[in-house]
Amino acid sequence: MTTKELVSQIQKKKSFLCIGLDVDIHKIPQHLLKEEDPIFAFNKAIIDATHHLCVAYKPNTAFYEAYGLKGWKSLEKTINYINENHPEIFTIADAKRGDIGNTSTMYAKAFLEDLNFDSVTVAPYMGKDSVEPFLAFNNKHTILLALTSNTGAFDFQTKQVDGKELYKQVLETSKTWENSENLMYVVGATKAEYFTEIRKIVPDSFLLVPGVGAQGGNLQDVCKYGMNEQVGLLINSSRGIIYASSQEDFAQAAAEKAKELQEQMAVALG
Amino acid sequence: MTTKELVSQIQKKKSFLCIGLDVDIHKIPQHLLKEEDPIFAFNKAIIDATHHLCVAYKPNTAFYEAYGLKGWKSLEKTINYINENHPEIFTIADAKRGDIGNTSTMYAKAFLEDLNFDSVTVAPYMGKDSVEPFLAFNNKHTILLALTSNTGAFDFQTKQVDGKELYKQVLETSKTWENSENLMYVVGATKAEYFTEIRKIVPDSFLLVPGVGAQGGNLQDVCKYGMNEQVGLLINSSRGIIYASSQEDFAQAAAEKAKELQEQMAVALG
Repeated sequence: MTTKELVSQIQKKKSFLCIGLDVDIHKIPQHLLKEEDPIFAFNKAIIDATHHLCVAYKPNTAFYEAYGLKGWKSLEKTINYINENHPEIFTIADAKRGDIGNTSTMYAKAFLEDLNFDSVTVAPYMGKDSVEPFLAFNNKHTILLALTSNTGAFDFQTKQVDGKELYKQVLETSKTWENSENLMYVVGATKAEYFTEIRKIVPDSFLLVPGVGAQGGNLQDVCKYGMNEQVGLLINSSRGIIYASSQEDFAQAAAEKAKELQEQMAVALG
Repeated sequence: MTTKELVSQIQKKKSFLCIGLDVDIHKIPQHLLKEEDPIFAFNKAIIDATHHLCVAYKPNTAFYEAYGLKGWKSLEKTINYINENHPEIFTIADAKRGDIGNTSTMYAKAFLEDLNFDSVTVAPYMGKDSVEPFLAFNNKHTILLALTSNTGAFDFQTKQVDGKELYKQVLETSKTWENSENLMYVVGATKAEYFTEIRKIVPDSFLLVPGVGAQGGNLQDVCKYGMNEQVGLLINSSRGIIYASSQEDFAQAAAEKAKELQEQMAVALG
């Protein structure tokens, strides 16, 4: 999917909501456990109930790998279901991968080609030749970790590197990489005050913003400081939506939570 | 496996060789392609031929994920085969994972518990709460990326952070984390001169050293500057061993290459 198509979807749906499909078998409604593939059954119901309210889905691969072969199968079924039924939706493999050149190419192929996600999250620590293999895929996007929403973000990301915080060095350096127009960035919503600084470095890039809701981030602040002319934001919510109810009405409850956020987004879009 | 058991194996085998099982279906001998699971067949032959010469095996998960469900199955079969037939061998899931707290726990469970690897490689960018979930597993090891062997290592890892290179900050900071005695570190062999500095910060830790051979690192230099009283080194070789021959004699050729390195290691162990 091109960035232009993503922006067009945002305008059409009046939403820049991304729903995180971080599915924990211990948290899904009990009645689903009798299904052949409870995780896929859960995802399918969530997707059916929310696809008109969001523009992106983001399964975190950890939650699928944790169930081994079965989990990998649930992930495959989920991405295939989205691509077949809702090809207009932007898909993110939240995998936080990164390895040396030829190995990164293997990861990129796995997520962007074989599973056919539109994008994948990547860690910056190993530098240019660990990220460029992901950037080489046409009309696919690499979402680089810049400033994350966890407390550990302060261990290294906000430390001064040559007089500038590490996350800013990551933003600036990454702009010099080949096919850098395919980059987006992860920026945690728990630090809305940082968005002004970030927009000085990457005014045009899309930012994937986790941490609204469960992690304490504020939607209005993120929009105020982070939005650009093309919107430039994908706001993720996972637990707040998918676990809105643990009963049989879980999908409807998820849709209601998604609708609340979508309505706030429609206001922010003006 | 405890560190003590690993050291004991090193002394017994006079080897601190780790063999990287980075299996590319396009590079394995043609005659294996008729097998039901060519990747596992390849690994099994390599393991059968080399297990007495090395103390560790390290599959890089990217090479398995690239084949989706099939690849994941090959990885499961490989780790099970090692654990069942050679439980004395230290196993490393080279996964370079790292995510926020509860998500890192999912990854840790997947690799250290379900697949039952002895260790997993982890990226430091997200800090303490992304790594500590891995450290919580008893008699398991977390191998943190410090200074990698690729050119991109110079993008951020060697940059000055508060007057000290980032990789040194990673080493120092990680020592303050809970259960830090379960930490090992990835340090690329292409930079043997760095080992002296690294040993000042982590004198007792095991270092996993990729980049000997294919990437240009020198075994003697690494031993000279990196070895400690408990040896403290695992030297990895992947392509140089497993692709020593592309013919039917591939396993024997791999054993010969492994033997060459093991003999150099026996000399270094004195």
